Amino acid sequence: MATNTRERIVTTTAELFRRQGYNGTGLKQIVAGAAAPFGSVYHFFPGGKEQLGAEVIHVGGRFYQELVEAVWDAAPDAVSGVADVFAGAAETLRQTDYADACPIATVALEVASTNEVLRVATAEVFAAWIESAVERLSAAGIGRAKARELAIAIIALLEGAFVLSRATRTTEALEAAGATAVARVRDAILQGEGRAKP
Amino acid sequence: MATNTRERIVTTTAELFRRQGYNGTGLKQIVAGAAAPFGSVYHFFPGGKEQLGAEVIHVGGRFYQELVEAVWDAAPDAVSGVADVFAGAAETLRQTDYADACPIATVALEVASTNEVLRVATAEVFAAWIESAVERLSAAGIGRAKARELAIAIIALLEGAFVLSRATRTTEALEAAGATAVARVRDAILQGEGRAKP
Repeated sequence: MATNTRERIVTTTAELFRRQGYNGTGLKQIVAGAAAPFGSVYHFFPGGKEQLGAEVIHVGGRFYQELVEAVWDAAPDAVSGVADVFAGAAETLRQTDYADACPIATVALEVASTNEVLRVATAEVFAAWIESAVERLSAAGIGRAKARELAIAIIALLEGAFVLSRATRTTEALEAAGATAVARVRDAILQGEGRAKP
Repeated sequence: MATNTRERIVTTTAELFRRQGYNGTGLKQIVAGAAAPFGSVYHFFPGGKEQLGAEVIHVGGRFYQELVEAVWDAAPDAVSGVADVFAGAAETLRQTDYADACPIATVALEVASTNEVLRVATAEVFAAWIESAVERLSAAGIGRAKARELAIAIIALLEGAFVLSRATRTTEALEAAGATAVARVRDAILQGEGRAKP
């Protein structure tokens, strides 16, 4: 029961952060959404909203990473994997009325210059995402340095497309960003093969 | 004097939104930063923070668009123009201790699901940016449909790289995103030339 309350608090907070950000989310709204007593936030998170925020960033980042990895790894190759990630993100946005996109981008922008604890938490999540994508691009035959450049570009495309798609309430940005990500991965794999067979 | 106060309020609010978002910015902080009497916000913006927010989004969006257009148009060609835009954004981030990036992205993510007036304002800004980039890419010989896809991808790359660069306090993401934008524009121009000379 106690564990469930803690989980409900984290899950509710994650959804609120994703939709309205860190500053726009109050503890009252969190406990109401989690059907938890007000004191329970400080019981589980003595550091209050900041400690809860850091946990939500880490849990949300890990959850989203596993989701994206599952989609990517289910595809027959890296090019299809990247395409499926963008298509899946577009589908989720449509299904959630353009509310559910990246679990941490809103918070990341809000706190980057104002809260060092939370900024570091978002940086750690992005570092894990980059490493995950680098592994997969390297396994597809792309050299490590190029794989890192592409991994960062793919995540930037996804994050930027979320900003545009949520603002415009269309998935056109995710489709355009996905096309660019796919083209770059395909080119990098072809160039790798070109070097391998001179 | 009255006009100056109004301008100071808009300028101060724009900077606060860019650094800490809409929800994290209070009217008290705005009037303090603008050295304006408290009542002046409601004098100039009877609709309060929301009306001020919409104006800041439009003014900030137009200002940033003109800045980017000036950088792009000063370059000898579209490929250099795009490269210069990303390099300039990286330089600005470094100079401002990773605080000044996109004037509206933070607010765009915060309000997308919670404030329709401000969401529409951010969508209008992004539409104007896309049109500006489409014009420039079309002038470089890229067909209209491909130019629109690339324009959106370039803006997504820039926005996403701002999220990553501010979170990680490095400009690596802007460099990786810039490399992808440049490669895609170069390829599109070469393909257009290829079609023109069969």
